[in-house]
Amino acid sequence: MSKVTLKRIAETLGISTATVSKALKDYDDVSASTKSKVKALAEKLNFKPNSYAQSLRTQESKIIGLIMPEIVHHFFANIILGVIKSAEKEGYLVITLQSDDSFEVEKQQLDLLVDKDVDGILLSLADNTIRFKHISNIINNGTPVVLYDKISKSIECNKVVIDDKKAAFNATKYLIDIGCKRIAHVRGKLKPQTTIDRFKGYKEALKVHGMEFDKSIVFEAKNIASFEDGKNAADEIFLNHKDVDGIFAMTDLLATGVLVRLKELNVKIPKDISIMGFSNWFLTRITTPKLSTVDQPGYKMGEVAFKILLEEINNTKKGIKAPYKTIEVPTELIIRDSTK
Amino acid sequence: MSKVTLKRIAETLGISTATVSKALKDYDDVSASTKSKVKALAEKLNFKPNSYAQSLRTQESKIIGLIMPEIVHHFFANIILGVIKSAEKEGYLVITLQSDDSFEVEKQQLDLLVDKDVDGILLSLADNTIRFKHISNIINNGTPVVLYDKISKSIECNKVVIDDKKAAFNATKYLIDIGCKRIAHVRGKLKPQTTIDRFKGYKEALKVHGMEFDKSIVFEAKNIASFEDGKNAADEIFLNHKDVDGIFAMTDLLATGVLVRLKELNVKIPKDISIMGFSNWFLTRITTPKLSTVDQPGYKMGEVAFKILLEEINNTKKGIKAPYKTIEVPTELIIRDSTK
Repeated sequence: MSKVTLKRIAETLGISTATVSKALKDYDDVSASTKSKVKALAEKLNFKPNSYAQSLRTQESKIIGLIMPEIVHHFFANIILGVIKSAEKEGYLVITLQSDDSFEVEKQQLDLLVDKDVDGILLSLADNTIRFKHISNIINNGTPVVLYDKISKSIECNKVVIDDKKAAFNATKYLIDIGCKRIAHVRGKLKPQTTIDRFKGYKEALKVHGMEFDKSIVFEAKNIASFEDGKNAADEIFLNHKDVDGIFAMTDLLATGVLVRLKELNVKIPKDISIMGFSNWFLTRITTPKLSTVDQPGYKMGEVAFKILLEEINNTKKGIKAPYKTIEVPTELIIRDSTK
Repeated sequence: MSKVTLKRIAETLGISTATVSKALKDYDDVSASTKSKVKALAEKLNFKPNSYAQSLRTQESKIIGLIMPEIVHHFFANIILGVIKSAEKEGYLVITLQSDDSFEVEKQQLDLLVDKDVDGILLSLADNTIRFKHISNIINNGTPVVLYDKISKSIECNKVVIDDKKAAFNATKYLIDIGCKRIAHVRGKLKPQTTIDRFKGYKEALKVHGMEFDKSIVFEAKNIASFEDGKNAADEIFLNHKDVDGIFAMTDLLATGVLVRLKELNVKIPKDISIMGFSNWFLTRITTPKLSTVDQPGYKMGEVAFKILLEEINNTKKGIKAPYKTIEVPTELIIRDSTK
């Protein structure tokens, strides 16, 4: 039983089974000395690395891994659902993991999934993942990885994204079209691509419509899922930028914080200030007034991500190496009552 | 390779690998004729059912299954998180499945998990699951199953629950304590135990405090996750029960629908009517006024459910059969601005 041998090698050498498995598959991130120790012991135990690697490739686990930075979040809950429902239809089960937006946790979880011989991995990057060698290693060793939502241009693989820049452009353009003359932006730290792209879309819309970009009315939330950070931005706008008549917040939570605080300060919405959110969470339907926003189709994204992962799994089985693609899932403006 | 043989038997006989696996393990829900066909073929292929079952018991998959009726729901998203975080600490991975509240889907998913040789299963029952033999079968065949949240008294196994009756009693008692004289209840269909228990708690609180139970002010929502159904209940109360001064809704979504609609009808909250929800979803913090509710600790429930599953897995390995227990995770009243 291969698993048993794997465990015996790991215990004998005092390393993890993940490392043994990687050593046998010649992963770059295992040292040469560990590799030779593992291979020597495997040979002694009559455990042929090559045939083992071979068997892994022909024997499917029919399990895939899904790593997401967070779960208690309407968008990601919808992604899980889109993935597991499509996977189940095709006879695949899904191991769900949450990286807490931590690079170290994400790396461990990828190792765990490789160790379980999953047939493929769906990965949304942690905010602080800036090195990608471990991911390329996994791909180069034959496990298909599809990046979704939080991706990096530095990794060559299939990707599913929302065009955040275009969506943010459309959201800002809508505020311009309804007559807003001075539009503030509430965003997060410029690290994840989504934040960068939404910020770019905002700037681009101003530029195309001949409006000046003023960094003094761009507010940086520490946490883009924080209601309180939205409230703080609203305080700043109310105190120091009385001329602001439109606000585009990069998440519905920030937008809701802005809306609630401005109402407390007796600002009329949308008469005095129009507010636009992003994501179309359930909560946008229950604020007063109801929040205008950008629909971010989580379920659809989960479906598409699984679909292209399955294509790659099937291609890999047949020895076909199809060119990588990046699929864009379309977004839609949802206009409610927080905009004029 | 056992899996390969399993598949060959399944293909030869035109049945699923799950059925083959169950036939070899003598499950009750496989017919005698199928069992004998499977066993005969297994013998011919030199595939020993007994040694196979043996190897299953000694070889851990270090994977557990988690079945939930829904996911896009703050409470269940928190449960996933509680489960996968505790599982990961102990070296277990979690396959997440969603039954769509369907008995048939739930049954198939349990079969899938058994087929994957998971070490244990966490299950919250679908609303329309009223037969339990397939679940007892799984338990009797050595796979630990822990029921959480939506449980049934008819299944003998470990369980993790919230005392819904006590929580609903406390919520209603609070409305009585602040001076409400006529308290309406918005509930779902009396099928899942949670709905029954919350309704019982409501009635019990009225009784203990000498208040009359009047079924004309108990409203049944078709869908307890429907904002609209809450609005409909509010319309009924406004039109036909002007004397109602307190409302206990069994979910925050129903309570929010009630609150939003009553505001539209110019009812002053909490001056005219106090409203109490149940669950403490994020949305309760962003309604105006903020909603008083009962905190339903999803993360904690997930942690506890995994903990007792792990205990049972470890006991099973050692051949220990500990008595089953039902653990109650405590709830808490969260008083905000929708109650006087």
